[in-house]
Amino acid sequence: MKFNIALLAGDGIGPEVINEAVKVSDAIAKKFNHEITWTPALTGACAIDAVGVPYPDETHEVCMAADAVLFGAIGHPKYDNDPSAPVRPEQGLLLMRKKLGLFANVRPTFTFPSLIDNSPLKRERIEGTDLVFLRELTGGIYFGEKGRRDGGETAFDNCVYTRAEVQRLAKKGFELAMTRSKKLCCVDKANVLETSRLWRETVQAMEKDYPEVTVSYEFVDAVAMRLVQWPNSYDVLITENLFGDILTDEASVISGSMGLMPSASVGEHTSLYEPIHGSYPQATGLNIANPLATILSAAMMFEDAFGLKDEAEAIRAVVNKSLEQGIVTEDLAPKGSKAYKTSEVGDWLVANL
Amino acid sequence: MKFNIALLAGDGIGPEVINEAVKVSDAIAKKFNHEITWTPALTGACAIDAVGVPYPDETHEVCMAADAVLFGAIGHPKYDNDPSAPVRPEQGLLLMRKKLGLFANVRPTFTFPSLIDNSPLKRERIEGTDLVFLRELTGGIYFGEKGRRDGGETAFDNCVYTRAEVQRLAKKGFELAMTRSKKLCCVDKANVLETSRLWRETVQAMEKDYPEVTVSYEFVDAVAMRLVQWPNSYDVLITENLFGDILTDEASVISGSMGLMPSASVGEHTSLYEPIHGSYPQATGLNIANPLATILSAAMMFEDAFGLKDEAEAIRAVVNKSLEQGIVTEDLAPKGSKAYKTSEVGDWLVANL
Ligand SMILES: CC(C)[C@H](C(=O)O)[C@@H](O)C(=O)O
Ligand SMILES: CC(C)[C@H](C(=O)O)[C@@H](O)C(=O)O
Repeated sequence: MKFNIALLAGDGIGPEVINEAVKVSDAIAKKFNHEITWTPALTGACAIDAVGVPYPDETHEVCMAADAVLFGAIGHPKYDNDPSAPVRPEQGLLLMRKKLGLFANVRPTFTFPSLIDNSPLKRERIEGTDLVFLRELTGGIYFGEKGRRDGGETAFDNCVYTRAEVQRLAKKGFELAMTRSKKLCCVDKANVLETSRLWRETVQAMEKDYPEVTVSYEFVDAVAMRLVQWPNSYDVLITENLFGDILTDEASVISGSMGLMPSASVGEHTSLYEPIHGSYPQATGLNIANPLATILSAAMMFEDAFGLKDEAEAIRAVVNKSLEQGIVTEDLAPKGSKAYKTSEVGDWLVANL
Repeated sequence: MKFNIALLAGDGIGPEVINEAVKVSDAIAKKFNHEITWTPALTGACAIDAVGVPYPDETHEVCMAADAVLFGAIGHPKYDNDPSAPVRPEQGLLLMRKKLGLFANVRPTFTFPSLIDNSPLKRERIEGTDLVFLRELTGGIYFGEKGRRDGGETAFDNCVYTRAEVQRLAKKGFELAMTRSKKLCCVDKANVLETSRLWRETVQAMEKDYPEVTVSYEFVDAVAMRLVQWPNSYDVLITENLFGDILTDEASVISGSMGLMPSASVGEHTSLYEPIHGSYPQATGLNIANPLATILSAAMMFEDAFGLKDEAEAIRAVVNKSLEQGIVTEDLAPKGSKAYKTSEVGDWLVANL
C-alpha cells in the first residue's frame, strides 16, 4: 500500500521524537512492502515564528491531503506565562482540531509490566489497568461563545452541545466497547449541568442499539476518585471535552508510563496521532527525550488509520522488547544503569524489528 | 460563650454521624464552659418526603438565625438514577449554598500517620501531604443560565464569573496562605477559558497586597496529574466551582483517609461544617458509619466559626488517640480486629476528652 502522511513535528523535543517514529515507520513499511511519503508542515511556536500563526493554511492543506497526520508536540516557554498573549501555540491546536473535524480523542491508559513500579500507585491498585477514554474534542466550553461584559469585570464561557455531537462520539464509544469488554462508562455531571443531561439522555437512547454493551453513568467527581482508587475497574469511558481534558491527564499519570502513552484524534476528514506528553522544552536538542510514545502513536496509526494490525503489533512487540532489555532513555533507566539516547533507541528498534 | 447551632442531619447515615458530633461537641462545651443550643432542621431527601422541597424556607431561617450550621449528608438512592427528576436533594444543596452565600468551600486533605497505608498511593508519595483547597461555591457554571434550544436538540450551560467573586475567594486564599506556608496555587484553564483569564488577572493584581505569598498558576489538567504524583508539593489552592468539585474529590482519596476528611463552607451570612463523605444509604441505621469526619468538622467549627482553638485541638487530639488505640469503625478496623459501632466511638471520645 501507499500512504501519504502529514508530518507535524512541532516544537521542543517534537522534531527529535518524530524523527525516531519516522525511522521505525519506514522500517516497518519496508518490511511489509508499503510506501510512505512524508510531508512535513509547520505548527505551534515554530509556525508562529516562521509565518505568524500557529496553524497556517498551508499546514491545513497538507493535513487534508494526507491519509493521516503524525504529530509531535507544541509549546514554547516564551508563551507559557501569558495565556492572554494575542497569538499562542495552543490556539493552533484548537484550530487544527476544529478545522480537521477531529471530534474524538482516543486516549488509552495501560501498563507495561516492566514499568509498573514507576506508578505512584501501589502495584496491586494499578496492575491490569487497561482503559480508554474517548474525549469529545471539538465542542463544549472550549468552542462556545466566550468574552467579557461590564467593561471587562464579568467574564463568560458558554458550554454548548448538540445531540448530534453527542451521538457521533457515543457511537465510537459503543463500537470500541464492542471490540473490548463491552463495558461503557458515560462520565457527566448530570446532577448539575443541562449539557450533561443531554449527554446522558442521548447515550441512554442509544443503549438499545448495542444490547450487548453494559453502560454505566458516573459523575465526573466520582470518576476522578475511582481512577485513583480502582483504575482497573474501568474499560471504555466517554466524556465531554473539558472533563476529558482533566480526567485523561489524571489517568495518564497513574500508569507510571506517562512518557509512553500514545493517542489518536479521529474525525470527519482525517485522523491524527500524537504522544500525550508535551514539548519538554528543557530537553530540546539534547537527544535524551523518550521517543516511545510517538512510536506507539505511529503503531496506532498503522492499525486504526490504515487497518494494518500486523504492522502495529510488530511495532508494539519491538517496543516491549526494548523495555525488557533496558534499551531506554534516561527517564526510564534505573539509577546506575546506562541511559540510551533518543536516536539510539530508534536505531535499536529498527535493527530489532 | 453561648452558641446557637443549626443541625441539619440530612439523609442516610447523616443522623447517626451528626449524633456523635453533637455528643462530642456538648462534652467539649461542658469542659470549656460554653453553652450550645442545637436547632434541628430538615434538608435533603427527608425534607422532600416531609414537605416537598429539599431546602425548605423554615430550614433557611433556622440557618440564618444560627451562629453556625452543622451538616450531615444528603442523598437517597431513589433519586440517584434520575438526574432529570423535577425535585432532587442536590438542588437543596445548591439552593442552600446560594441563599446562605457560602462562597468558599474549604477542603483540607491531610494524612493520619496510622492510616497512611490505606492510601492507594505509595507511602513515600503521600507522606507529609497537608493541603487545602478553597473552592468557589456559589458561581461559575453551576449557577449560570442553562437550558435547551432547537426543540431540545441543543443544550447549554453558561459559566460566568465577576471580578468581585474572584476577589473575595482569592482574598480568603491569600489570608489562609499567610497562616500556613505562604504558598498559593491558582488553578485555572487560562489557555482556553475567558473566565479563567479573569481569575488569573484578578489574582495577579492582588499579589502586591500579599508580598510574602508566593503565587503559582497551574492549569487544571496539570494539577489533576500532580495531585497524584506529588500531592505534598501543594499547600493552599484556589479554584473555581467545577474544577474544585473534581479536584477536591480527587485529592480526598489520595490521603487514604477519605472517611475522615472534614470541610467548611464559609460566606456572607454564616458558615457550614460537614464531612465530605456522602449519605452512604446502604449503612443507614446500622450504627456502623464512621463519625470522625463529622466530629472533625465540628472541630473546624469551634476553631473557625467561634475562634476557639483549644476546643478544636482537644477534639483533634482525642480523635488521634482513638485512631492510635484502634477505637475505630469497621471501615478502618484491620482484618481480624474488633470494629466499634458509630455510637461506641462517640462514647469513647467523650469519655477520653
Ligand atoms: C493545550 C490545551 C489547549 C490542550 C487542551 O486543553 O485540550 C491540552 O491540555 C490537551 O489536552 O491537548
Ligand atoms: C451533589 C453535587 C451537586 C455537589 C457538587 O457538585 O457541588 C457535590 O458533588 C459536592 O461536591 O458537594
